[in-house]
Amino acid sequence: MAAVRDRVAEFGTAVGDAGMAAALVMQPQDVYYLSGTGQPCNLLVVPGGEPVLFARRYSDLARRSARVARLLDGPGFSAVVREAERIGVGDGPLGMELDVLPAALVERARRAFGGREVVDCTPLLLAQRARKDAGEVQALRASVRMYDAVHAAILEHLRPGIAEHELSAEVARALRRAGHDGVIFQRRWDAKLPAEGAIASGENLAVLSRGPISVTGVGLSESFPMAASGRRLQAGDLLNIDLGLNRAGYHGDMARTYAVGALPPGVEPLARAVREIQDACLDAIRPGVTADSVHGAGVAAARSLGVADVFQGHDGVHGPYVGHGIGLELDEPPVLGPGVATRLEEGMVLAVEPKLMSPAFGAVNIEDDVVVTADGCELLGELPRAVFVVDENGGGTPVP
Amino acid sequence: MAAVRDRVAEFGTAVGDAGMAAALVMQPQDVYYLSGTGQPCNLLVVPGGEPVLFARRYSDLARRSARVARLLDGPGFSAVVREAERIGVGDGPLGMELDVLPAALVERARRAFGGREVVDCTPLLLAQRARKDAGEVQALRASVRMYDAVHAAILEHLRPGIAEHELSAEVARALRRAGHDGVIFQRRWDAKLPAEGAIASGENLAVLSRGPISVTGVGLSESFPMAASGRRLQAGDLLNIDLGLNRAGYHGDMARTYAVGALPPGVEPLARAVREIQDACLDAIRPGVTADSVHGAGVAAARSLGVADVFQGHDGVHGPYVGHGIGLELDEPPVLGPGVATRLEEGMVLAVEPKLMSPAFGAVNIEDDVVVTADGCELLGELPRAVFVVDENGGGTPVP
Repeated sequence: MAAVRDRVAEFGTAVGDAGMAAALVMQPQDVYYLSGTGQPCNLLVVPGGEPVLFARRYSDLARRSARVARLLDGPGFSAVVREAERIGVGDGPLGMELDVLPAALVERARRAFGGREVVDCTPLLLAQRARKDAGEVQALRASVRMYDAVHAAILEHLRPGIAEHELSAEVARALRRAGHDGVIFQRRWDAKLPAEGAIASGENLAVLSRGPISVTGVGLSESFPMAASGRRLQAGDLLNIDLGLNRAGYHGDMARTYAVGALPPGVEPLARAVREIQDACLDAIRPGVTADSVHGAGVAAARSLGVADVFQGHDGVHGPYVGHGIGLELDEPPVLGPGVATRLEEGMVLAVEPKLMSPAFGAVNIEDDVVVTADGCELLGELPRAVFVVDENGGGTPVP
Repeated sequence: MAAVRDRVAEFGTAVGDAGMAAALVMQPQDVYYLSGTGQPCNLLVVPGGEPVLFARRYSDLARRSARVARLLDGPGFSAVVREAERIGVGDGPLGMELDVLPAALVERARRAFGGREVVDCTPLLLAQRARKDAGEVQALRASVRMYDAVHAAILEHLRPGIAEHELSAEVARALRRAGHDGVIFQRRWDAKLPAEGAIASGENLAVLSRGPISVTGVGLSESFPMAASGRRLQAGDLLNIDLGLNRAGYHGDMARTYAVGALPPGVEPLARAVREIQDACLDAIRPGVTADSVHGAGVAAARSLGVADVFQGHDGVHGPYVGHGIGLELDEPPVLGPGVATRLEEGMVLAVEPKLMSPAFGAVNIEDDVVVTADGCELLGELPRAVFVVDENGGGTPVP
């Protein structure tokens, strides 16, 4: 598989350029990216050398799926150390994914390598992963298109009387039938999200709960106060869904707002504003501009539309972003946020998610995914970028 | 909330007895256990002192839910360090959850505390959490009972022609409607499980994939080769489901095997055997016995029934366990495995999961949850411990 061979070579070069003697990659999504297997394996990458895969459990399935020629059994670190000695890994620190690997595990590796210095190789991996190849863009397009099944389920079931968690159940069903992998991969150590994402309505819309500055919902229990609650929908309510669409490992990230039966008063201009803010962001996206400038375009639009005080949060708590990369994990660099100097490149895939939030009206939210093209960007989905008013027959009227 | 006050006091004593100056607890399930809030917080526990909670994001929701009197804003570690100095934390290492917290995060904490030694406080937390109080047993009973909705969904939908992932969709729907939190908490850094668990059938039953030595299924994609696949069920197939039932933070863990239309030849004695092995384990559970001895009872039963070669795996790969604790995470100590000297105590809640696996017949699996009582144990669920033959009308006949 040429893609995997090229990926390992590029990563190996980055490892060498960063002054590391080698990198030991363990996180499942990174290992999958570099080796093609989703089985539990460790991957040793030495600059300029052939990569070596170590099966942490059963090597037969790893051998069948991996696109790496050299595969050894090695549940612990001793087999890795032996192989590193055989190859003759040079001096210098060992790269590991210090942002996600547990401290105790990294310490065991450090000791197995005779106390060698361990440094973080995650920034190298994520910078490389940010540029998607054609196959990855195709995979992301297929993931984004799963939202069509979500939209259909919401139109079918969103009626006065249904509870948020009951609607969440219908979305979960639709997604699994559409080919969702059933789990969401997020890199942040304390992040967690149901497969069907976060559904919130009414007074839950403006609550910022459990970490993300976003429309999170309040959940069914205090132990996980996020996503759908038991709140029952009423005519005239707004409902928001924000979810990760994981198909074959690649995560779309979409959000829409729906109104039950009729649009509440005052929401139409907000729906128009959030769409115009998203337009401003999409217009700003092209190779060479900074991630910061896309966020700036969103902020400027929010200001000129007079909604800056409810943009990306409310009452002084505002998320410092208007989007982010997506891929093998739901949130990837670059963050489209203030001060992020990363320059956009062709092939990056970005979620652009302006939202207006306030206890006064709840939330009006719109999130779509684009691939950066040679001279701009292209939407991966085809659903109207609008708030949908759902009538009693399951029709959905887009506004604006 | 007396329970939380008692928990913090007990944990503080353990921290002191282990020679730690203090513990800084960050993992969401541990923080919830000790403070009552599911919002992102850090909890500083000093032996003999009052605990202090630091809100990593918005303190208002944390303040409303937490049962800890002192709550400060503190997204990073500097507020914790200031408070530790104010309290006058003594010499000695700082306890952190080194098995789950990322290496880079722990290193930041170590530096913030002036290079103080950091040691693992997780074993203390998990030893305490293993003994459930009456409220926790009640919560676990409610979680286990959610399996009734799963069973009903399987009887309704398991027919020739349905695909594993389509049945998984029905189970996901039933669980979310029944009050499942939508996510599963597992402590192992690379573990991941859909809310509806792992469904497998036919030739997928005996495949050991992605880590756990269990009936895992092979998944829809190589990036997550676990749980339901697109395989379509046929008359005479066996199907297995093994899942975590997370309701209000507490995880039941149940598994059952179903036959489509009719029991395949040779499976009835296996269904009888796996039930007898589970009986032997349940008979062995009482306060004072070691976790090892429960596993030993299962192995002895498997040997005397002539199924040791397919017990907990096959072809030389056999899981070294017959069960484990359950609670705020799906897999908790004690593991009921060889060499585990932990003595069972009244109030522990254990999943007991003997399984017979072989490419010859697939898998016959049964998992139930019990609470250790004064003189034995008590099942938390009421569903027959059997293989169910599902007929075309949705009837389910238990065997044996």
